[in-house]
Amino acid sequence: MFMINVGVLGYGTVGSGVVEILKKNADLITQKSGKEINVKYVLDLREFEGDPVQSVLVHDFEIIKNDPEVNIVVETMGGLHPAYEFVKASLEAGKNVCTSNKALVEAFGPELIKIAREKNINFLFEAAVGGGIPIIRPIRDCLCQEDILEISGILNGTTNYILTEMTDKGAAFDDVLKDAQDKGYAEKDPTADVCGYDAARKIAILTSLSYGKTVKFEDVYTEGITEISAEDIVYAKKLDKKVKILGSAVKKDGGISISVMPYLLSKDHPLANIDGVYNSIMVVGNMLDDVVFTGQGAGKLPTASAVVADVVEAAKFLNENIYLEWEEEKLPLIPFEETKAQFFVRVKGNDFKASGFDVQNVPSEFEGETAFITSEITEKEFKAFKDSTEVINYIRLK
Amino acid sequence: MFMINVGVLGYGTVGSGVVEILKKNADLITQKSGKEINVKYVLDLREFEGDPVQSVLVHDFEIIKNDPEVNIVVETMGGLHPAYEFVKASLEAGKNVCTSNKALVEAFGPELIKIAREKNINFLFEAAVGGGIPIIRPIRDCLCQEDILEISGILNGTTNYILTEMTDKGAAFDDVLKDAQDKGYAEKDPTADVCGYDAARKIAILTSLSYGKTVKFEDVYTEGITEISAEDIVYAKKLDKKVKILGSAVKKDGGISISVMPYLLSKDHPLANIDGVYNSIMVVGNMLDDVVFTGQGAGKLPTASAVVADVVEAAKFLNENIYLEWEEEKLPLIPFEETKAQFFVRVKGNDFKASGFDVQNVPSEFEGETAFITSEITEKEFKAFKDSTEVINYIRLK
Repeated sequence: MFMINVGVLGYGTVGSGVVEILKKNADLITQKSGKEINVKYVLDLREFEGDPVQSVLVHDFEIIKNDPEVNIVVETMGGLHPAYEFVKASLEAGKNVCTSNKALVEAFGPELIKIAREKNINFLFEAAVGGGIPIIRPIRDCLCQEDILEISGILNGTTNYILTEMTDKGAAFDDVLKDAQDKGYAEKDPTADVCGYDAARKIAILTSLSYGKTVKFEDVYTEGITEISAEDIVYAKKLDKKVKILGSAVKKDGGISISVMPYLLSKDHPLANIDGVYNSIMVVGNMLDDVVFTGQGAGKLPTASAVVADVVEAAKFLNENIYLEWEEEKLPLIPFEETKAQFFVRVKGNDFKASGFDVQNVPSEFEGETAFITSEITEKEFKAFKDSTEVINYIRLK
Repeated sequence: MFMINVGVLGYGTVGSGVVEILKKNADLITQKSGKEINVKYVLDLREFEGDPVQSVLVHDFEIIKNDPEVNIVVETMGGLHPAYEFVKASLEAGKNVCTSNKALVEAFGPELIKIAREKNINFLFEAAVGGGIPIIRPIRDCLCQEDILEISGILNGTTNYILTEMTDKGAAFDDVLKDAQDKGYAEKDPTADVCGYDAARKIAILTSLSYGKTVKFEDVYTEGITEISAEDIVYAKKLDKKVKILGSAVKKDGGISISVMPYLLSKDHPLANIDGVYNSIMVVGNMLDDVVFTGQGAGKLPTASAVVADVVEAAKFLNENIYLEWEEEKLPLIPFEETKAQFFVRVKGNDFKASGFDVQNVPSEFEGETAFITSEITEKEFKAFKDSTEVINYIRLK
């Protein structure tokens, strides 16, 4: 049987998970793929005394790059550099690359996909979005016949955990964040998660793949969950809605808009009941209507599993590019201020009366404030209102 | 650009949907796949005056089979014969086949997959299970590295609709069935759906693919929902559970068991909140943990969309077999009577006392009956109990 040789760059959480799965599930991988997959090298600056990986450990990328027997490189180093340099060099050397690195994919995806195409190999990144949840391959293979009208997801486990806890326990954001950090569900520096940047990178990647042209992270209007309070959650419950933060791209009237924002979702929204650390991505096609992919968006073994799925695919299609459309050309987007939404708003004062748009009054739950839901207005109109009013907080409806 | 020619066998609901999608989404399909896909023939015994399909309509399969320009055959006729004969002849003539026909796939899957492999083409059937929901391709491509510990799904929209209505409205089975038939959610002869046979075929296919060996429809222990009553739903609500009918394959202690049965699911079970006509499939892997795929399990355009995804895949991999493991050899199964479950049971009589197993009492909701939940017992033990007791009804817990 033909043996496939793999070089793993980075023996951290995901990298070691990849080695573990390739070893533990070796027989069934061979059975189901028809190929025998061997980890020939693991690259890391560190030593791992007592770990069997020591026998395949190297400290010099050139060893992997220059070995013609290595067919597939796994990049699980994280960060942009030298991940980008190593990945590019691997592809140029005719080696397939499988990565879990969303920052790398968001920043350099189209370029790397193009090199792979020219070399008749593959650059694969299922694990870069949604951890173990199959979503990249389904978009490429199962949904390519669809005109995608919407792709929205709960893309970050940290913020979903926090919002779930705030909802279930009526607790304050700061308390739940601290608890999440203690439990390992949030980083010491939680900015990327709670400010929505992680979700923004992911929705940028998913949208680029859905439409074949590039959306950059900087183009995604992003609001995190740091302003969501226990009081907001009280209102959500009274309105029979759930507060969720979604990365969302919507195609409407021929134009595409993209954002990451908290929303009040009605209870029958497909994403409303996805709780805890779970992630979920909903895709709406013009023929298919909605499909939803749910699972663990992070974690060592789920994420490593998706990387191994890429390795198996690369092994099955050795020296053959699987066509994937993602051009460097930017996807035209509707300017954010022109997009429309309904807003749930809390303002200071007992008798506030809004003007310029219609509102549906919401009984006030707390002293000294007024609450209402606006009619559908543009972001520009809402910004003007917000800049001239003492707004306590607001959450858009979806 | 290379043109791919397709022959569509059967211009019914799904077949006409396939033609519609290939026409309506033609540009983006060409853009995303790199191939131009043309419907050269549609085979049907009927005429379709006024429908543009008339210009490509043929009544003789031989025309399609003998045309070397036809690369892909779509089978949307339904039924076993002559679908099997036409599909086999198409594959033997070197033409890829894409089908939505679950009866065909369940009965002849391994044989047709083998012919396709020998001919270096593909036999694809995403639409055969779960309508538009991507599940066949994810099992083949995204989960092949996993040791699948469980694959369970709400696989039938008719029964899910009925159970949802019974739950939401407290209505009786017969009334809801009639309403479902009026709305087109149930057939005039609803047997295949309400007796669980449709779900049994689907779980047989999914399990065969998950383990690479054959499970036949006849091997799936099947109970439908015809015995579920409004009174059972009252108990379910009191127990804070949802009644759902699942097709389920479970790998435990090295052995695999398979069944279609109603269950009482706890509210946080991933499938508990999938309501209405929606289908959903949960896969649990030894590394991945659980992923869930949800969407419309039936309907003209969702089902046709999955067939078109197959057509695009066949077009992308023309004259190249994508390895799929499904051998004719039977998958060894744990005999049903050896499998274990907990049962919620209602028996006649106010003071019934069970013996032979432990029970947790459930307050009786109706005159003249006793209710309880058993400890985990074998199906054999439960059958012996049921045969010697006046059982009103029972539902297993999951």
